[in-house]
Amino acid sequence: MDKLLRVDMTAKKIKVETVPEKYAALGGRALTSQIVADEVEPACEPLGPFNKLVFAPGLLSGTNAPSSGRMSVGGKSPLTSGIKEANCGGVPSQKLANLGYKAVIIEGKPAAGEFHILKLTEGGVELLPAGGLAGRGGYETVRTLQEKYGKKAAVIFIGPAGEMLMAGAGIGASDPEGNACRYFGRGGLGAVMGSKGLKAIVLDSPKTFDVPVKDKDRFQAAAKKFARILLDHPVTGQGLPAYGTNVLMNIINEAGTLPTRNFSRGRFEKANDVGGEKLAEVCNARGGKATHACHPGCVMRCSNIYILPDGRELGKIEYETAWGFGPNIENGDMDIIGELNYICNDVGLDTIETGATLGVLMEAGVIPFGDGRAAVEALKEVGRGTPLGRIIGAGATFAGKVYGVTRVPAVKGQAIPAYDPRSCKGNGVTYATTAMGADHTAGYAVTANILKVGGYVDPTKEEGQIELSRNLQIATAAVDSTGLCLFVAFAVLDNPEGLPTVIEMLNAMYGLSLTADDVVALGKSILKVEKEFNARAGFGKADDRLPEFFYNEELPPHNTRFVLKKELDEVINF
Amino acid sequence: MDKLLRVDMTAKKIKVETVPEKYAALGGRALTSQIVADEVEPACEPLGPFNKLVFAPGLLSGTNAPSSGRMSVGGKSPLTSGIKEANCGGVPSQKLANLGYKAVIIEGKPAAGEFHILKLTEGGVELLPAGGLAGRGGYETVRTLQEKYGKKAAVIFIGPAGEMLMAGAGIGASDPEGNACRYFGRGGLGAVMGSKGLKAIVLDSPKTFDVPVKDKDRFQAAAKKFARILLDHPVTGQGLPAYGTNVLMNIINEAGTLPTRNFSRGRFEKANDVGGEKLAEVCNARGGKATHACHPGCVMRCSNIYILPDGRELGKIEYETAWGFGPNIENGDMDIIGELNYICNDVGLDTIETGATLGVLMEAGVIPFGDGRAAVEALKEVGRGTPLGRIIGAGATFAGKVYGVTRVPAVKGQAIPAYDPRSCKGNGVTYATTAMGADHTAGYAVTANILKVGGYVDPTKEEGQIELSRNLQIATAAVDSTGLCLFVAFAVLDNPEGLPTVIEMLNAMYGLSLTADDVVALGKSILKVEKEFNARAGFGKADDRLPEFFYNEELPPHNTRFVLKKELDEVINF
Repeated sequence: MDKLLRVDMTAKKIKVETVPEKYAALGGRALTSQIVADEVEPACEPLGPFNKLVFAPGLLSGTNAPSSGRMSVGGKSPLTSGIKEANCGGVPSQKLANLGYKAVIIEGKPAAGEFHILKLTEGGVELLPAGGLAGRGGYETVRTLQEKYGKKAAVIFIGPAGEMLMAGAGIGASDPEGNACRYFGRGGLGAVMGSKGLKAIVLDSPKTFDVPVKDKDRFQAAAKKFARILLDHPVTGQGLPAYGTNVLMNIINEAGTLPTRNFSRGRFEKANDVGGEKLAEVCNARGGKATHACHPGCVMRCSNIYILPDGRELGKIEYETAWGFGPNIENGDMDIIGELNYICNDVGLDTIETGATLGVLMEAGVIPFGDGRAAVEALKEVGRGTPLGRIIGAGATFAGKVYGVTRVPAVKGQAIPAYDPRSCKGNGVTYATTAMGADHTAGYAVTANILKVGGYVDPTKEEGQIELSRNLQIATAAVDSTGLCLFVAFAVLDNPEGLPTVIEMLNAMYGLSLTADDVVALGKSILKVEKEFNARAGFGKADDRLPEFFYNEELPPHNTRFVLKKELDEVINF
Repeated sequence: MDKLLRVDMTAKKIKVETVPEKYAALGGRALTSQIVADEVEPACEPLGPFNKLVFAPGLLSGTNAPSSGRMSVGGKSPLTSGIKEANCGGVPSQKLANLGYKAVIIEGKPAAGEFHILKLTEGGVELLPAGGLAGRGGYETVRTLQEKYGKKAAVIFIGPAGEMLMAGAGIGASDPEGNACRYFGRGGLGAVMGSKGLKAIVLDSPKTFDVPVKDKDRFQAAAKKFARILLDHPVTGQGLPAYGTNVLMNIINEAGTLPTRNFSRGRFEKANDVGGEKLAEVCNARGGKATHACHPGCVMRCSNIYILPDGRELGKIEYETAWGFGPNIENGDMDIIGELNYICNDVGLDTIETGATLGVLMEAGVIPFGDGRAAVEALKEVGRGTPLGRIIGAGATFAGKVYGVTRVPAVKGQAIPAYDPRSCKGNGVTYATTAMGADHTAGYAVTANILKVGGYVDPTKEEGQIELSRNLQIATAAVDSTGLCLFVAFAVLDNPEGLPTVIEMLNAMYGLSLTADDVVALGKSILKVEKEFNARAGFGKADDRLPEFFYNEELPPHNTRFVLKKELDEVINF
């Protein structure tokens, strides 16, 4: 991975550059955030010619390090107006790494309505007119491109929502089965890709695990050991592989922090109907799969293959999606969740943002709470670009503004995901303080708050949450740079050999002598870069707060409020 | 004016308080901004229970000081999320002052859908159910209330847009003829009034000019002198009384700074068809009035009475309205402007924000540029609360977000009015730096830039604009506190006896010994209070900038860009 690809969408020019020394030790989020900070004017218009979109595989991507096939994409978010990194599995990260690219930078802006496909092969790079693919849904886009370039070609794409510049649009990626179901979901980067006129990126390489590694034996030993560490942990070795992420539904419901009816209570009476156990049952019954790897080489296999009643293969349903289209809108029908998820994958919307938006529209009375069919009909309007479809595609904050809703669960313009901050307060601290806008993956305190992984911090109390979130945010920023799935953290937090083994893989691969301190320093440096970008974009302390109603409304069943305010200013204090 | 009225809309409780000493010397904007800063948490939800809405007549309101019938309303804006003062003529200011109230504070929040009328008479204050008035348009609301309480009762009201909590909603006021055409237009304070469940305020007093004055003879002499100063100036004594504010259309067009087709050029070939001279002609031909006082005692009489082709009496068309519904959307038909204006008055929307929003929707291709009929049909959707109507009612910034438009002429979420900042750079400085969001009235540099009033500063050059805007913003904040119409500034800027005469009126009325320095200090102190509120609400330097396209696109015919950035941080530097 010694090349950097720069694509100017104004002039349609492609340039392959040598990776500058300052980026040599960076990958994934560390690299996307640094390039964005270096090259994008923080005050720029997110959908204008001065924003850039940066894709970067993680440092370990393209090797057989277990669960290392995650890629980052970065840019300035049209949803938050701050810096954004979104992270995705699927096949692309390993392919891009094996093609030798450390990063792909998309810049400039073509005339409106002009769309291209970027094709990367071992033979070179081409920018091709998208032709009839423009306007097509995600499933058809991936199918068409794989028919043309082969089933093994990885595809990164946007749907009509991204083409129509909707702030809730994600960037999709093909999974190993060719389903258009993996998403760099959050922050509206699909709209940025749309503004660049880039319909899809095709990554065509016969290799998956063949990125050069300096010390192969040492690397293989460490990789093998790391796989064992993952398989030995009850969450990464048993819970996730058995039921996927949606195993959380009943756990979070039991914990009383499952946001229900647009965050008005913490338990949903039909949680079990939309939980992981039920999901596995339906997957199996319909010839799908209850367990499935989102990318080759993942040992946690937390994904699944869901088949809709009419036989359409959806791809997977994740916990946060099941939550957004389930408890959050008081829907207890798994097939409605599947249908809403399918539409999002196809039209190209983030399911978390969209679930929260539907909750806000129900709060406004536009759709009745609990009416899944009405939600499906409303969501179908996104692809048609009707005014209601546009409002849904714009995300929860703008939808709330359009309807004058005051109970909008969002921070910095991005919707709060599936864990209520009042009774999972560590996550609340993360939502409020991460530069990313409300994001559970930025510092997933569910670990210590609920799952008792990496210690225990009472989720309903204030004590310890600041420190918990801070440490998790630092660790997460580092993990997001390796290409490892964030879920390895469950094992790493509990197993003292976890972190040394990750470091051993990095050292063996790059011939380095990193220590645990270096990893912490990397995490901190990423968070600082991101916070400084946001400060220059106009963010300050007032933006590091939760919405008013979390401070003023008690959440049943624990009847707790969120109270931390000034303390939040101490989270990123380095 | 020694009473302060506090109305709790949660508990439906009315309290008459004595004016605290610290507010004794404040009126109008000085008072609304200070009360908002003292009582409203800057980070609060603008449409939630913790925001407040404060009405205050100016210090000279309710006397026969010429053109002193302006009132301020303040609160946290749902459009900008910052502090807001909106200013209005019409009959209410004189009535409220004569009823003895220095300010009315509306606080709390009732259940959704519950609306009341606040009735103030010499006999006391009552909060009455709005009954069938809820949902009614502005014209019917005023007519119904005046049928009930007498033609002399002044009415402050919101239309359906405010009731539906639209961020572009204004607060209306009746004019001397009972037309629902005067507006505290900007910043969406109509939605705040809607969130308080307050449909209207009825001010019923037989008096108009009878507020107690300490030294009557001295006051009358000064008032008479001030009237003479106004009548002697070519703008306030001739231009405005002859053609109203829309006399500016041809002047601004000639100057090449008339924003046309959503700010893409500075001249409109049909400007004359929608200008003041034509307006006067149509008003006279249809039995309206080419010249008209918006409040009793105004000597400038810059308003008019426009009659629509079907005979409906609109009330007035102002320059900024004619611009927003004319050049900005490439419409050259005055009756279309009248119709759009009528709908805004009736449904309760700010015409500047709405004109800019229609321009943004045309930029997005939702409505064709120049298609006035389509604009009328779209605007009718606001009252119906359809998704498109909601988008229009939410204002230009949110509409731009929903449609992914990058050319949105707005600062701090509020639309830029009828003077392009690239070739009227002094106004550009004001738009960028006022705490109010883009607002021409916050520091109207058109004076020295275009009209050569108060000196001359080349509108296309950077030199002198910072100082010009700063001085105008200070002076304006002071004028907005007196109840005098801002237009008195034309005369005050040119006539060295202007300011001393205003001070003489204040001193005679209150038994004070204010100097010119005190007036400047008052203006500065207001701007500081407002800026500090915004800082606590999260605003910083990055918010004091114009949208990207003003820096990157040249405006014909002068082919100039806006270039000031860091210099803008020096405007409010005291």
